[in-house]
Amino acid sequence: MVAINCDMGEAFSIYRCGDDEGLMPWITLANVACGFHASDPRVMRRTVALAKEHGVKVGAHPSLPDREGFGRREMKMERDELTAAVIYQVGALSGFLREQGMELNHVKPHGSLYGMAARDEQVAEAVADAAAVFGVPLMGMAGTVHEKVWGASPGGFISEYYADLDYRPDGSLIITREHAAFDPGSSAQKAVRAVTDGVATAVDGTEIPVRADCVCVHSDTPNAVDLAKAVHEALRPHLS
Amino acid sequence: MVAINCDMGEAFSIYRCGDDEGLMPWITLANVACGFHASDPRVMRRTVALAKEHGVKVGAHPSLPDREGFGRREMKMERDELTAAVIYQVGALSGFLREQGMELNHVKPHGSLYGMAARDEQVAEAVADAAAVFGVPLMGMAGTVHEKVWGASPGGFISEYYADLDYRPDGSLIITREHAAFDPGSSAQKAVRAVTDGVATAVDGTEIPVRADCVCVHSDTPNAVDLAKAVHEALRPHLS
Amino acid sequence: MVAINCDMGEAFSIYRCGDDEGLMPWITLANVACGFHASDPRVMRRTVALAKEHGVKVGAHPSLPDREGFGRREMKMERDELTAAVIYQVGALSGFLREQGMELNHVKPHGSLYGMAARDEQVAEAVADAAAVFGVPLMGMAGTVHEKVWGASPGGFISEYYADLDYRPDGSLIITREHAAFDPGSSAQKAVRAVTDGVATAVDGTEIPVRADCVCVHSDTPNAVDLAKAVHEALRPHLS
Amino acid sequence: MVAINCDMGEAFSIYRCGDDEGLMPWITLANVACGFHASDPRVMRRTVALAKEHGVKVGAHPSLPDREGFGRREMKMERDELTAAVIYQVGALSGFLREQGMELNHVKPHGSLYGMAARDEQVAEAVADAAAVFGVPLMGMAGTVHEKVWGASPGGFISEYYADLDYRPDGSLIITREHAAFDPGSSAQKAVRAVTDGVATAVDGTEIPVRADCVCVHSDTPNAVDLAKAVHEALRPHLS
Repeated sequence: MVAINCDMGEAFSIYRCGDDEGLMPWITLANVACGFHASDPRVMRRTVALAKEHGVKVGAHPSLPDREGFGRREMKMERDELTAAVIYQVGALSGFLREQGMELNHVKPHGSLYGMAARDEQVAEAVADAAAVFGVPLMGMAGTVHEKVWGASPGGFISEYYADLDYRPDGSLIITREHAAFDPGSSAQKAVRAVTDGVATAVDGTEIPVRADCVCVHSDTPNAVDLAKAVHEALRPHLS
Repeated sequence: MVAINCDMGEAFSIYRCGDDEGLMPWITLANVACGFHASDPRVMRRTVALAKEHGVKVGAHPSLPDREGFGRREMKMERDELTAAVIYQVGALSGFLREQGMELNHVKPHGSLYGMAARDEQVAEAVADAAAVFGVPLMGMAGTVHEKVWGASPGGFISEYYADLDYRPDGSLIITREHAAFDPGSSAQKAVRAVTDGVATAVDGTEIPVRADCVCVHSDTPNAVDLAKAVHEALRPHLS
Repeated sequence: MVAINCDMGEAFSIYRCGDDEGLMPWITLANVACGFHASDPRVMRRTVALAKEHGVKVGAHPSLPDREGFGRREMKMERDELTAAVIYQVGALSGFLREQGMELNHVKPHGSLYGMAARDEQVAEAVADAAAVFGVPLMGMAGTVHEKVWGASPGGFISEYYADLDYRPDGSLIITREHAAFDPGSSAQKAVRAVTDGVATAVDGTEIPVRADCVCVHSDTPNAVDLAKAVHEALRPHLS
Repeated sequence: MVAINCDMGEAFSIYRCGDDEGLMPWITLANVACGFHASDPRVMRRTVALAKEHGVKVGAHPSLPDREGFGRREMKMERDELTAAVIYQVGALSGFLREQGMELNHVKPHGSLYGMAARDEQVAEAVADAAAVFGVPLMGMAGTVHEKVWGASPGGFISEYYADLDYRPDGSLIITREHAAFDPGSSAQKAVRAVTDGVATAVDGTEIPVRADCVCVHSDTPNAVDLAKAVHEALRPHLS
């Protein structure tokens, strides 16, 4: 059983970001931004309602407190300060879930918080302390500190495979500021292989092992809806 | 049965505000700031933990989104936008309550949001919609739109008497930017009369009817701790 | 001699807003957002550089401190507080002008600050006090408090005609949250009449007097670039 | 000729920070916070006016964009982004100086921005690019990247000696979150030696060379006013 997750609700004020309405039908887990890097209370409320309409489960997508940098600028925070920042954000999202009669499904940190937690145990533990308050699993990358720390957390760990990013032969991701378009068909087939065989193909053709409890698509990939739809259709037999 | 409430956790960043440690022993309900006019996640977390230590119940103290104006500048927000802003804040606080195994007790809006809701039914209803999500009562002033709208809300209404503000003969409060010191003994005796007899004495000596389910003290009154202690001791037989 | 002005630099963080590159060739005055309702330091710096490339003069476009509401939510601020907020924003923009060796041309308030200043002398005077620090004119609508207060200010007053908004027979504007597309040809001809004859045509066909030192186009009108180009071409003989 | 500098205007909203009124008579340079780690437009305006009253020259005290962390949390910003952030802040302050008919005297970065610029040439250069727009010197610590980069900048470099911090035998500062009280008399005598002989005494008694164009006192040292007054009186013959 596998899931398809996507970061959602990253609009803010008058600004749009990604085609949430177009994507929601093709995903099964929405990681909803919590107002620290993107979103605002009204956007969060609408995004949770949209997820409910489509039967999509909702996780929190907390960030470093950095709206201007969209949560992509690393910041040094003390451990307790970071835990408190994550509890605050997940709690805020939980208010909107409560309104819809929904349960929080997971926590997936955003941007630099995700990246820092993949390398730094202190950061990963600070986030885990917050997720433990809500008793939910953390989502991240297998083979990194995510798996090491979050795999041992009470709520457990959900590993993800990226359908719209390239992998290096060492299994690390090639992160670019602007996402390139990916061919939906071949991305979907790669996603199926990752999920069923635990194998990803790196940019140089090398086959590398991956662990994929779920597949991530990004709303800012140029052809995001087509890609999500293709991944959804290819994975349909495996979707939870 | 009566309660003593105080706004708490209004520090921010390196800035202090009020002697929360000194006041917590003498109150029974803490209205905890939620980060929109004051507080930050670390301050909220510490304030909730401090309340738990002292057996003090915690309510949310949400505000208009106005940190620079300390929530004291009126803002025109659309009704759904305001409801979403209050759900966000109350939800955020609920995360810290969950960590401590505590239940949310009530919602008391801050500053201009409190004042606007006392006069404007749309504002009062927007706040009531948010409190209804959490199923808790709203705290405010009897004889205002607070009572009219919140008295009819599913969670109910808690009326408060101000021990450290003067009343006009028409029952309205004299709000000053800086709180003056009040004589603890006579303030405490007036609070007992308000609670037991439903009578307040206006600045001109007129006796006016009040309804007081609880007594409010402010942390920025110059002798706040002495006053809270005197009120606590005088009300002890009546405290819930 | 007439000018064409447009609000510019209203992007923020990763979010885009309006086609500044497409519009800049067709305007002569850019009202550059100053970070309170939109923009950030990097966007401001780029916008000023873009204006310089195109020989476009730059004015400040200050706002109420309300990024989440895009400066469209009315706020009650004290007069000195508002003056300080505008000095801050205009000063910040002036730093980027200084870097480019450019002079500040004017101040045009944004959104609710513009609207409040059209009705409330206190607000108009607070803004005028700030513009006086920089010795520049204020831009606004003739026939409103803008003209009354700003017309008497040391820097003077620039009146504007809106090429992409409809006028009521009483001369007031019909403001809508989303701008509709306007026919470029007829809008341009109306702008010429407003500028040369001082006559606007209201939605019901009534001819009403207008005073137009400059013509305003909005970057969020759906066909903004076509409209600006048409207005530019029609007004070419009159452009300063 | 030597100066005494102090960070000023670090209040915010209703929150106070340091006794600016008490300190202003004893300093000759005020480093005024610019709204990114502390201060707001009204506080900045008052602080500049207060400096003018006392004949104190004003420099800008820009920070990383981090109000919640008081500018003490390191953040990774791109070089152009940081330069833009500093130009924005210095420009904003310059508006208030213009109102008072004062000239900007210097730029001294705050908190983590100061610390990062002492170690990282990219950061120091980003700040220098911003100061160059205003043609003023940068203030920092001799013997660090401050001196290396800023010493070569067009506006020049002002080195400072800390009267209320301890030095290690290697010349580095012992930074503590809370400043301890210092004996005014001996601190003042040490400041005179630093200024006249270029010698500081480290915590272990070692004499170390220092270069001190000016002496810094902090407003959050417990006996800050007494210390500033003692330093002022001892340095009087040398003050510019």
